[in-house]
Amino acid sequence: MSQSVTPLLQQTADLRLSIRQGEHRGPTSGLATGAMQGNVVILPADYANEFLLYCQSNPVSCPLIGVSEMGNYALPSLGADIDMRFDLPEYYIYRDGEKVESRESIEDLWQDNFIVFVLGCSFSFEHALTQAGLTPRNIEQGVNVSMYETSIPTVPAGRFFGNTVVTMRPYVPKDAIRAIQITTRFPKAHGAPLHFGDPTLIGINNLAAPDFGNPVAIREGETPVFWACGVTPQLAIRNAKPPLCITHAPGKMLVTDVLDTDLAVF
Amino acid sequence: MSQSVTPLLQQTADLRLSIRQGEHRGPTSGLATGAMQGNVVILPADYANEFLLYCQSNPVSCPLIGVSEMGNYALPSLGADIDMRFDLPEYYIYRDGEKVESRESIEDLWQDNFIVFVLGCSFSFEHALTQAGLTPRNIEQGVNVSMYETSIPTVPAGRFFGNTVVTMRPYVPKDAIRAIQITTRFPKAHGAPLHFGDPTLIGINNLAAPDFGNPVAIREGETPVFWACGVTPQLAIRNAKPPLCITHAPGKMLVTDVLDTDLAVF
Repeated sequence: MSQSVTPLLQQTADLRLSIRQGEHRGPTSGLATGAMQGNVVILPADYANEFLLYCQSNPVSCPLIGVSEMGNYALPSLGADIDMRFDLPEYYIYRDGEKVESRESIEDLWQDNFIVFVLGCSFSFEHALTQAGLTPRNIEQGVNVSMYETSIPTVPAGRFFGNTVVTMRPYVPKDAIRAIQITTRFPKAHGAPLHFGDPTLIGINNLAAPDFGNPVAIREGETPVFWACGVTPQLAIRNAKPPLCITHAPGKMLVTDVLDTDLAVF
Repeated sequence: MSQSVTPLLQQTADLRLSIRQGEHRGPTSGLATGAMQGNVVILPADYANEFLLYCQSNPVSCPLIGVSEMGNYALPSLGADIDMRFDLPEYYIYRDGEKVESRESIEDLWQDNFIVFVLGCSFSFEHALTQAGLTPRNIEQGVNVSMYETSIPTVPAGRFFGNTVVTMRPYVPKDAIRAIQITTRFPKAHGAPLHFGDPTLIGINNLAAPDFGNPVAIREGETPVFWACGVTPQLAIRNAKPPLCITHAPGKMLVTDVLDTDLAVF
């Protein structure tokens, strides 16, 4: 089956089915491109209101694209058939803010007081950058994007607080300007960068040693450009220490039926 | 008469009348803000086709917003009452590519084969930057913007050729990103920057010694950001050496009835 002749919403449904049936367990990067993929955070209700406020207060790092009803594992606004108990290739389980295990389904962990949060992710703008001839270095090199904890504080909400995590992609200035224009179109995928140039100005001391993901080459004449990252809320969850929290495993996202362009501006 | 209670199109008409009557001879910067002001180039017909092609081929440096009919000093698309013989505070006269004099009117120089070109200018986006709290340093310091000839060639057209001239405004990276977004909205006022950071990459060796205009302070943590400049065509005119060419004097622009927002995108 060639992706090029399969309608995108058929691709997304097929991919979710394949994940649900345990056939696809790998990263979702580069699959069903054009459809939004989401960071997932599942919390018990007594932490959910504070986390909702945290996302609303930090919309660049935590761009909410969907919130479930309490206890309901469906998310019809993101895909008619979504079942959050099965539809991620891999789940991370956190207890008291620490990751304790990973699972392929959370059917037996599901609670009636769970609320599911889905946040836009940079895959949407990476696709747009690639289409524009500005392929991110991490995609060129076939590695995870470089991620760094910065000294930029988020706005706290209740028990949730922490610094902003950023991704870094290097570009020559001319291409960085174009990349700023392109990513501005995608506010629900972290939008425009927060910073470029000297990393120490935002508390990053060694670009070659990212806190998450892999280092990438920075070539002569290139400037590092930094975007807010969906790992930011995971830091806040570590700080909030909820008794139970479930997230996607990095790079293994929720595949939605919302198009990148649906939530793009101008 | 307070600008705040006078409709903008009344302000522009009043300002043009004041210029036409010789009452206003100074710069037009900061007057009738919100209405576009234009760079002016007047050429004899046998140079005009090549200059038109030069502008079309270099739309970022030379964003055409109006062209007159041959011999006609009216420009109804830019203002019902415009008379190009009188409506600039000061005219520069070039013969064989060299500036030979300046004048307050060109009534006695007018020729039936003249064609008037009007190009958008950065005042439009400087107004938008200021409104957004990103007042350009040149405005803060009350001096002309710093302008530099770069090593970036323009696309030649007939006898017109030369390097791109840029303006420079320093910003901290976060503000530079916002400034890129804001100026992107104004493609007819040079749009987004061409470059930021290391000036030597575009052939500028000394930021403290601009080729035109005045130097401005660059503060700790700030990056120079470079936009294409309407002085670019003046370099091409020097190279083309038309027997006669008339332009506005720097900072003393044509005041139009076209709003900055009329030619803004999204």
